[in-house]
Amino acid sequence: MKDLVVVGGGVIGLSCAWRAAQAGLRVTLRDPAPGTGSSWVAGGMLAPVTEAWPGEEGLLALGLESLELWPAFAEELSAAAGQSAGLHPEGTVVAATGSGDRAELDALAQHLARLGRPVERLNGRELRRLEPALGPDVRGGLSVPGDLSVDNRALLAALRAAAEKAGVVVEERAWEPGEAAPGTLLICAGAHSAALHPGLAGLVRPVKGEILRLTHRRGAFPVPTRTVRALVDGRPVYLVPRPAGLVVGATQSEHGFDTEPTVGGVRDLLRDAERILPGIAEYALSEAAAGLRPGSPDNVPVIGRLDGRTLVATGHSRNGILLAPLTARLVVGLLAGRPVPAEVDPARFGRTGT
Amino acid sequence: MKDLVVVGGGVIGLSCAWRAAQAGLRVTLRDPAPGTGSSWVAGGMLAPVTEAWPGEEGLLALGLESLELWPAFAEELSAAAGQSAGLHPEGTVVAATGSGDRAELDALAQHLARLGRPVERLNGRELRRLEPALGPDVRGGLSVPGDLSVDNRALLAALRAAAEKAGVVVEERAWEPGEAAPGTLLICAGAHSAALHPGLAGLVRPVKGEILRLTHRRGAFPVPTRTVRALVDGRPVYLVPRPAGLVVGATQSEHGFDTEPTVGGVRDLLRDAERILPGIAEYALSEAAAGLRPGSPDNVPVIGRLDGRTLVATGHSRNGILLAPLTARLVVGLLAGRPVPAEVDPARFGRTGT
Repeated sequence: MKDLVVVGGGVIGLSCAWRAAQAGLRVTLRDPAPGTGSSWVAGGMLAPVTEAWPGEEGLLALGLESLELWPAFAEELSAAAGQSAGLHPEGTVVAATGSGDRAELDALAQHLARLGRPVERLNGRELRRLEPALGPDVRGGLSVPGDLSVDNRALLAALRAAAEKAGVVVEERAWEPGEAAPGTLLICAGAHSAALHPGLAGLVRPVKGEILRLTHRRGAFPVPTRTVRALVDGRPVYLVPRPAGLVVGATQSEHGFDTEPTVGGVRDLLRDAERILPGIAEYALSEAAAGLRPGSPDNVPVIGRLDGRTLVATGHSRNGILLAPLTARLVVGLLAGRPVPAEVDPARFGRTGT
Repeated sequence: MKDLVVVGGGVIGLSCAWRAAQAGLRVTLRDPAPGTGSSWVAGGMLAPVTEAWPGEEGLLALGLESLELWPAFAEELSAAAGQSAGLHPEGTVVAATGSGDRAELDALAQHLARLGRPVERLNGRELRRLEPALGPDVRGGLSVPGDLSVDNRALLAALRAAAEKAGVVVEERAWEPGEAAPGTLLICAGAHSAALHPGLAGLVRPVKGEILRLTHRRGAFPVPTRTVRALVDGRPVYLVPRPAGLVVGATQSEHGFDTEPTVGGVRDLLRDAERILPGIAEYALSEAAAGLRPGSPDNVPVIGRLDGRTLVATGHSRNGILLAPLTARLVVGLLAGRPVPAEVDPARFGRTGT
């Protein structure tokens, strides 16, 4: 039986560890606090279409490929874990307020149409028919039923349970660079990966994101059914439904390893979210937190071989949870000797020689 | 040795327990979670002058009397506890933005002058000379050097340490109405007091207050030296300095026993606080919480005898921490057979017959 040491207990590390154990490897996962990093803070959108940006067509294709894997992945995971993986089967609406925001959504819709992914354009009234909580400032937008979401914390719990049932040994201590691993080493340490291998130095950087967790209170407007994404005066904001409330996010800043939510970030999120869903004023503000997305130079993950004994799966930027099923599949392929697509291989940065 | 059971481990209960133990009583304090209620959430202002409202002259007199006790109380407490009681010796500035807010401050200044408590009027430039962090929207205000503040969490820790050193036995479980107390019972259960004695039914009600705790971050504007109180478009807000940041508060609403901070409450606090101190945008938002002030019908505390074996000290509304030294003194007097001033006696509501 071959050995694998997975460094990092977020969604990527846990997914790879679970799948590798299923494939017959003897897997150890190392993380001083599994499931408490950026995967814990995430919004949990599975939204390749509404995340699509011109120039990132490769990322859109990867996202769509992974989104297709998600329903079966969630079902298998729920069964293996004996608890729900948290997949929320409802789609996404995108809302715009001012004319500049609507023009930007028009450009996104045209871009998607050119890619053969037409989306439904709706006016404010039509959007409010889908989601009655949308406020009067919402003037138009898109409906994208295929862009889903997952409860990231339910997912983490299910992944850990399934991984341990499949034989993964979780060791709650840090991995030190230079430590000798039995067998193969797989680095899935998110924004902290760069320090763990010379081939990743300067390649993965922390991109801070702040989120709020709101809890529905008795008498308040009901939680929307779908993910609501919006542009408010040019600023993106998203509101992702959870069983008891909403996760609100979208701030993005680069300040090193900084996980403190700021007054200015929280103020912007609250203001923009209330413009879109005014009824949240009566919700409880249960949590403000910040996480570190592992940014890569092209926003595409870095999945592949770093040297004869070391693999990597990180750099997922905004898309770690979406891309987890596909990433785990690619890593299991690597472990069996199959290559990865060139667009995710770290070799694209000329960093690796093997 | 006489027995006393104190119900409630907030600032009032702990202060009374400490002082009663010093006076020679055998004291037990009962609270399922001492020091975690509204005293934990409080801003910690010792500010009778800037809290003065026309019609509340009796409360102002009590506040001034207790404020005079504070420096010696804090010094004795720090020594007895072996840790700082958290008294912050700097004063208070009151800032106004629009003309309506300035007119309201003018009325407060005139009211105080009529009471023989003149306060210093300052324009925006003069205020910013005292506190350079005040933003350009601040057009004028008052300086009240005598209104101080205390770090409520340091105070709670010091009170508990001093009380236990003086012999108080803290039992971390709830007091059930109807339980038999050895000796005298003293009810200091804040907003929860009404349920504990028929003489308090309908007299003490919960008044919710939301606070934010902000932590200074490297590179951000320094924390102000003084307490900053302000009126922003008619809404009060206060910013109280702490060693590592600020406590921001002032919301007030009556929703029963509700301790969830809401989106709308937090949004208002952030907006108003940033109008006064724009530099806090770069601070961390470390905590949002809500507490329940024990409201009384006239905002004056309810301190006195409820029946032959039961005393009460609650109903301190916005002023519990300010009035703690005086309250403890009055309670020790009651225990020695001395009457309390008529304005705090529960007999003023015609509720007690003894």
